[in-house]
Amino acid sequence: MYKTKPTHDCPMPAEGMTIRALVLNGSLKHHGTLSNTEELAGEVLGHMRRMGPVESEIIRLSDRNIPVGLEFREGDGDDWPAIVEKIKAADVVIFATPIWWGGRSSLMQRVIERLDSLDEEYIASGRSALYNKVAGIVITGSEDGAQAVLGSIMEVLTFMCFTLPPECCAYWVGEVGKPVAEETASRRMNQATKHMAMNLGRNLMFYSGLLKMHPLTVNA
Amino acid sequence: MYKTKPTHDCPMPAEGMTIRALVLNGSLKHHGTLSNTEELAGEVLGHMRRMGPVESEIIRLSDRNIPVGLEFREGDGDDWPAIVEKIKAADVVIFATPIWWGGRSSLMQRVIERLDSLDEEYIASGRSALYNKVAGIVITGSEDGAQAVLGSIMEVLTFMCFTLPPECCAYWVGEVGKPVAEETASRRMNQATKHMAMNLGRNLMFYSGLLKMHPLTVNA
Amino acid sequence: MYKTKPTHDCPMPAEGMTIRALVLNGSLKHHGTLSNTEELAGEVLGHMRRMGPVESEIIRLSDRNIPVGLEFREGDGDDWPAIVEKIKAADVVIFATPIWWGGRSSLMQRVIERLDSLDEEYIASGRSALYNKVAGIVITGSEDGAQAVLGSIMEVLTFMCFTLPPECCAYWVGEVGKPVAEETASRRMNQATKHMAMNLGRNLMFYSGLLKMHPLTVNA
Amino acid sequence: MYKTKPTHDCPMPAEGMTIRALVLNGSLKHHGTLSNTEELAGEVLGHMRRMGPVESEIIRLSDRNIPVGLEFREGDGDDWPAIVEKIKAADVVIFATPIWWGGRSSLMQRVIERLDSLDEEYIASGRSALYNKVAGIVITGSEDGAQAVLGSIMEVLTFMCFTLPPECCAYWVGEVGKPVAEETASRRMNQATKHMAMNLGRNLMFYSGLLKMHPLTVNA
Repeated sequence: MYKTKPTHDCPMPAEGMTIRALVLNGSLKHHGTLSNTEELAGEVLGHMRRMGPVESEIIRLSDRNIPVGLEFREGDGDDWPAIVEKIKAADVVIFATPIWWGGRSSLMQRVIERLDSLDEEYIASGRSALYNKVAGIVITGSEDGAQAVLGSIMEVLTFMCFTLPPECCAYWVGEVGKPVAEETASRRMNQATKHMAMNLGRNLMFYSGLLKMHPLTVNA
Repeated sequence: MYKTKPTHDCPMPAEGMTIRALVLNGSLKHHGTLSNTEELAGEVLGHMRRMGPVESEIIRLSDRNIPVGLEFREGDGDDWPAIVEKIKAADVVIFATPIWWGGRSSLMQRVIERLDSLDEEYIASGRSALYNKVAGIVITGSEDGAQAVLGSIMEVLTFMCFTLPPECCAYWVGEVGKPVAEETASRRMNQATKHMAMNLGRNLMFYSGLLKMHPLTVNA
Repeated sequence: MYKTKPTHDCPMPAEGMTIRALVLNGSLKHHGTLSNTEELAGEVLGHMRRMGPVESEIIRLSDRNIPVGLEFREGDGDDWPAIVEKIKAADVVIFATPIWWGGRSSLMQRVIERLDSLDEEYIASGRSALYNKVAGIVITGSEDGAQAVLGSIMEVLTFMCFTLPPECCAYWVGEVGKPVAEETASRRMNQATKHMAMNLGRNLMFYSGLLKMHPLTVNA
Repeated sequence: MYKTKPTHDCPMPAEGMTIRALVLNGSLKHHGTLSNTEELAGEVLGHMRRMGPVESEIIRLSDRNIPVGLEFREGDGDDWPAIVEKIKAADVVIFATPIWWGGRSSLMQRVIERLDSLDEEYIASGRSALYNKVAGIVITGSEDGAQAVLGSIMEVLTFMCFTLPPECCAYWVGEVGKPVAEETASRRMNQATKHMAMNLGRNLMFYSGLLKMHPLTVNA
């Protein structure tokens, strides 16, 4: 089980490198409503910035049109291909999701289903577009499911060729049966969650910096 | 997510039937040390008794010798065959386990591995010895993993031919990062956990009574 | 692990009772394209019919409009409330889903998210609208994930108050790395999958018949 | 889902570095019996050796005495503390396990439970003994569960501070219901599994070499 840990900085592999970070937020709530998941992802971005320059963007998936389907592009209004361009341009991708009944949200699941076409590209070429990118995971839920959701996302990301640093996740879950209205306040005060956010931010910066300097280069 | 629910009784399918209940406790702690899992399982047994006569036994697996292996009997001192006899004699079997790093305990996993030989018996004969038995599940963990552990046990039990009543589980998990020393007290006060124990006890009695009166009888 | 088992019939609890069955198919494919999941669910319905009269309907979720959200009704074109009416009218609900990267499909996850409002109703009233309904689960995937997806759905359904009969699932998964083009043929020939469909059909009929005759009735 | 992919080498971060690799094999079978999991782990070690010097050891956990418990040392004959020394000395640790009913084996679960005391050490000091170590995972099962078991191990290892390279796993699972007697032959011929072993070997070498040259150094 996760327990509160002291946190410390580490020197970056190189000075002054700008890291591009993309957050994909699978919250079921639309823009304008507080997303606990997004707030925690924002905290991680803040810790990244303490270590060096970061360019970041957060996409709230509930406000995009990402239709169900197996193709790279599913019809005219499909927002997915533009999101893929952003993923390809990023050094760090943070997969952020609430937990619903023990699973990643339907929007995060949709992202994973649509990423399948990128994986097909790798199968054909032998070179994944996602090597040397570092993934982080952010999860919030009422009372349970963080580790299961975490594992279920990690196993996808590793075969998609992302690198997973130590302590690749920041999460919050409360005690079973507590009032939903108190969740945000409890999460904001939780020391274990704060430390996870700090370690995740630090490790995303270190590993993405390291892989920018020393990428794994697959020969054809 | 689970939330506190009001609970109500229901009439039993028949009066006066004695239900035999067996608890397999996969706690890592030995006899003489408080097992949160066992205490919660005991609460479930208490609710069963409110509805009718119950004969019960709790086996703490950490105090038995259940060696690793694929055979029905693994050497001379193997306690497993005697446990199988108790399972076969029971109407209700409660699988109780703590959560360790998101998974059922190694002792509960051992039970599942050893149950595999019973499943082989079913494959050979077409009649499972476990039809018409009702299973309950009890889970306690520091902060996460109850639903994942629950699902991972349910999927085994259904193919072992147990019947799973509604609300087949009572669990407790706390907020991430809280002191281990406070767990027992928090669990004892948790209303959601109390209601789960009540509903589980009631439903185990109703379904086991119903199946004793109207068993599924598989023709050869 | 699941192995091929002989199957046998059992007498129904009562003659001539009509069972209403609803299949929710979470395939990513639209109407007109072969859904492996739907074909297997259809086989289960066929086995149900061997035991007695069945009225059934299959809903392909990819062709319905089920928006993301937390409300019972999410705007005007929302198809969800009509689906809830069908669930409430059914004796048996079959949750059918393909596996995508180890998880239930985004459409099945959406169903679970939207069912949450029904659960809220139970929290308020103490009487679930889903007591005495029996659930079956049908899963198909290329090579892996059936048991994990099964468990992850079972744990939701039990807290939603469905009854889960023994052998509550029929699934097919192939060997890792085999051509997608051969999946349908392999599945159709698989003896283990055939027996699971048979046992699932039989058990759904027996348990739904039994609960229609002897429902669990919760006092207020 | 995993599909067969072409594989290519990559240059090592530095020439001539010796990588120390430890395999923890959670097979239920004892020494002298073929372990599918061990054979596949051996293949991964072979691919590592193609890229540079490797010192390796395989521990078959079923032949060691690793008692249940929460302490670092559980009595006199406890083999666990000596295993911890080997883990601390390794650059690469491969966690190898069969699948039993959808879960990691009871022996792999025991390892994870016993690793908990190392995690406590980290909580106290703020410096994990496992930073800069790279983990690989090897899984074999009859027909299902590889991705779920993979995720469930990854989520533990990341919080234990292991680094998880891209494609951190090699696994084999067969089609549901096929004869156990044919598993070894099918696994040995499976192209997807072969490619996973190749990529895993390559990536373990690249990442462990990279972290030996450029370790993440946590300040006190």
